[in-house]
Amino acid sequence: MQKLLDQVKQLFEEEQFIHEPRELYEPIEYTLRLGGKRIRPVMLLAANQMFGGEVEQVRYAAIGIETFHNFTLLHDDLMDKSPLRRGKPTVYCKWDENTAILSGDTMYALAWRYFLRQPHPHLQEILNCFNETGIQVCEGQQYDMNFEHQTNVTIADYLMMIRLKTAVLLAGALKIGALYANAPAADVENLYQFGIHLGLAFQLQDDLLDGYGDVAVFGKKTGQDIRDNKKTYLILKALELATPRQKEELEHLFATTPEDSEAKVTRVLEIYGQIGIRQHVQEAIQKEFDLAQQHLQAIQVQQAQKRPLEELMDALFERKK
Amino acid sequence: MQKLLDQVKQLFEEEQFIHEPRELYEPIEYTLRLGGKRIRPVMLLAANQMFGGEVEQVRYAAIGIETFHNFTLLHDDLMDKSPLRRGKPTVYCKWDENTAILSGDTMYALAWRYFLRQPHPHLQEILNCFNETGIQVCEGQQYDMNFEHQTNVTIADYLMMIRLKTAVLLAGALKIGALYANAPAADVENLYQFGIHLGLAFQLQDDLLDGYGDVAVFGKKTGQDIRDNKKTYLILKALELATPRQKEELEHLFATTPEDSEAKVTRVLEIYGQIGIRQHVQEAIQKEFDLAQQHLQAIQVQQAQKRPLEELMDALFERKK
Repeated sequence: MQKLLDQVKQLFEEEQFIHEPRELYEPIEYTLRLGGKRIRPVMLLAANQMFGGEVEQVRYAAIGIETFHNFTLLHDDLMDKSPLRRGKPTVYCKWDENTAILSGDTMYALAWRYFLRQPHPHLQEILNCFNETGIQVCEGQQYDMNFEHQTNVTIADYLMMIRLKTAVLLAGALKIGALYANAPAADVENLYQFGIHLGLAFQLQDDLLDGYGDVAVFGKKTGQDIRDNKKTYLILKALELATPRQKEELEHLFATTPEDSEAKVTRVLEIYGQIGIRQHVQEAIQKEFDLAQQHLQAIQVQQAQKRPLEELMDALFERKK
Repeated sequence: MQKLLDQVKQLFEEEQFIHEPRELYEPIEYTLRLGGKRIRPVMLLAANQMFGGEVEQVRYAAIGIETFHNFTLLHDDLMDKSPLRRGKPTVYCKWDENTAILSGDTMYALAWRYFLRQPHPHLQEILNCFNETGIQVCEGQQYDMNFEHQTNVTIADYLMMIRLKTAVLLAGALKIGALYANAPAADVENLYQFGIHLGLAFQLQDDLLDGYGDVAVFGKKTGQDIRDNKKTYLILKALELATPRQKEELEHLFATTPEDSEAKVTRVLEIYGQIGIRQHVQEAIQKEFDLAQQHLQAIQVQQAQKRPLEELMDALFERKK
């Protein structure tokens, strides 16, 4: 795993992101140099190497998938009006809205440039996977925005949304890495499903961290989802399990945007504590985590080849072995 | 030409743009059904048929290039805060800013879906052309935005900007159509240069229409570029030719955004009239028009095969034969 991280780090260090006009490319370089966990290129490389691939075979695909991911973050931050990303000002805050729109569009085109630069006999299948993933990510973001104004969102709706918004890109990164190594179709499918369930687990953990995370580690202000009246797994599960009185209060809190948002966040977290939401979300994470592991186990390669992805899972979910 | 227009019209009528979630796809359908001149798909088909191609060979490439173009318009209208496009409310006005951002992103991905659906032995070259064009269009839009705040924009800067923002996409549409028909490289290059000069002529005419167009025909409010202090060919040429006194007044007018913008527009147009800007721009248009014609003549196909593109030129520049 560490080796993969180092490989991905080096790929980005070796890449030049600044061109003319600088007003367009500086925010792109800023975004791509912010770092982050680089999970998607690491997964792409891991999947590729699981089936005997070499870094050079997927160098540009790895940079391309991360460039695409960062494009979606850039536009999402603008749409959500998020001031911080990875503890640093977002592009729309540091520059302005138009810069965020156009730099994002350009990053999407640059992601395509990287993918088109990485040859493969079945490139069209790879490009199709990349593109369909991109469309699903946009659909997921739209559902996410719809849910803010929708009163009857179910947990099934929510899981469908995070599948599109988050899980398919992790699954797509794995699939693309495997396709570059000419992996058998059944293994590609298991790897894809592994990515889906890992992605669901990952997003549910992100929801949990919004309520219970450490701002220094997480890089975002705690309780932002609550301030935004965002329907995450936490509130949806809480509404499902709440007493009528708790439910009424939660619905009232999530229908308002008070001046003093801290009091609101504190009160919501109090009710979550009474209901035991933290444990319920942890159980849901465990369920997806187990499903991910089952699909990983079903892949027909030697156990040692799976070790990097197992380590990635442990690292993402901070489980010590 | 009329046959090509009918073919393009039919392609769009046969295509379904609505999917789930509707909040995402309704603005996309609205945009793609607004109509417009469909110049890019018409040019793509014309180039293809010039070298013996058939509609079915480029059906999805034609829809793809128009989808891409409409994506750029959608985001440009948001960045420019333009209320009208083709006489109808723009997406960001009819819906909201976030809808415009995300529907635009999705349109870009859909354009890729169309291109990936249209097979060709040298698809990668075609996709490269499409993608590099897209990057250039973004760079052009950035220069356009830069120029709003830049005081020393030259006519050469301006021509470079409109080349990127407008001309390369027309040229790219022609090149893609020709590549699908396996046209010889020298002809592809002449066709590309034809598109560049036609595009420059077309944009200069658009600048002229902002000052002197009929709002009912043009679909935009006259003088909008003046209101926005936008550096178009008109003001750059005027500053070049103005007396010191006129220059000072123009610079003052273009450094302010008064409440009463009508008085400003009227005064700028008065000075343009004194300088004879209209005729200067018409000469610049003619120059690019002539260069376009030279490149068209150099293409090694029978004269009759060029007739549709000649008719397109006549239609775009309203010259009767």
